[in-house]
Amino acid sequence: MCPYRLVLEHVTSRWGVLVLIELLDRPYRFSELRRAIGRVSEKMLTQTLQTLERDGLVHRDAKPVIPPRVDYSLTDLGREAAEQVRSLALWTRDRMEEVQQAREAYDAAKARN
Amino acid sequence: MCPYRLVLEHVTSRWGVLVLIELLDRPYRFSELRRAIGRVSEKMLTQTLQTLERDGLVHRDAKPVIPPRVDYSLTDLGREAAEQVRSLALWTRDRMEEVQQAREAYDAAKARN
Repeated sequence: MCPYRLVLEHVTSRWGVLVLIELLDRPYRFSELRRAIGRVSEKMLTQTLQTLERDGLVHRDAKPVIPPRVDYSLTDLGREAAEQVRSLALWTRDRMEEVQQAREAYDAAKARN
Repeated sequence: MCPYRLVLEHVTSRWGVLVLIELLDRPYRFSELRRAIGRVSEKMLTQTLQTLERDGLVHRDAKPVIPPRVDYSLTDLGREAAEQVRSLALWTRDRMEEVQQAREAYDAAKARN
């Protein structure tokens, strides 16, 4: 597989998409981000953030305070990726009616055969 | 999960991405498409095409000839999706050097801790 395909998979992974889109708004602490995304396990969110951090898309800022505080934000590179991912997500949302009509036509044709 | 998240997952799935990008060039027969993509099993390609067809993104044209001939092409809706997916894939390819540098820095920092 071309190396960039792997990065594309990180960016378009189920949780990768949601993390990038949330972080477009503002930096988040881990627990806030988990609440904002919903239904994601701590383990999956940790893995997703580590993968995006390693790719240089997310910046992890661990503040030396008590209690410990860690903020996640987009890097410039991450912002470019996130804007494209959001645009694709919004396109998908805006076209759901056409998708739904296509599905009904497809299922009706299958039922006739 | 919001219904459009599922469509986004179809469009950004490993084989979904490759099918959409290939079909931007021209219509393909099944076996041609499989060769063009490479490393995809017949079953996975069939499933991917059925999912994209049901979503209204891919058009399946079965010609009544002997031997049977089936062509796959993008619908107008599919072309819109495919252009965005291609643009994201090209962005990823163009940014691989920065991603690679970020990974090396990340791995070096981990090794120091």
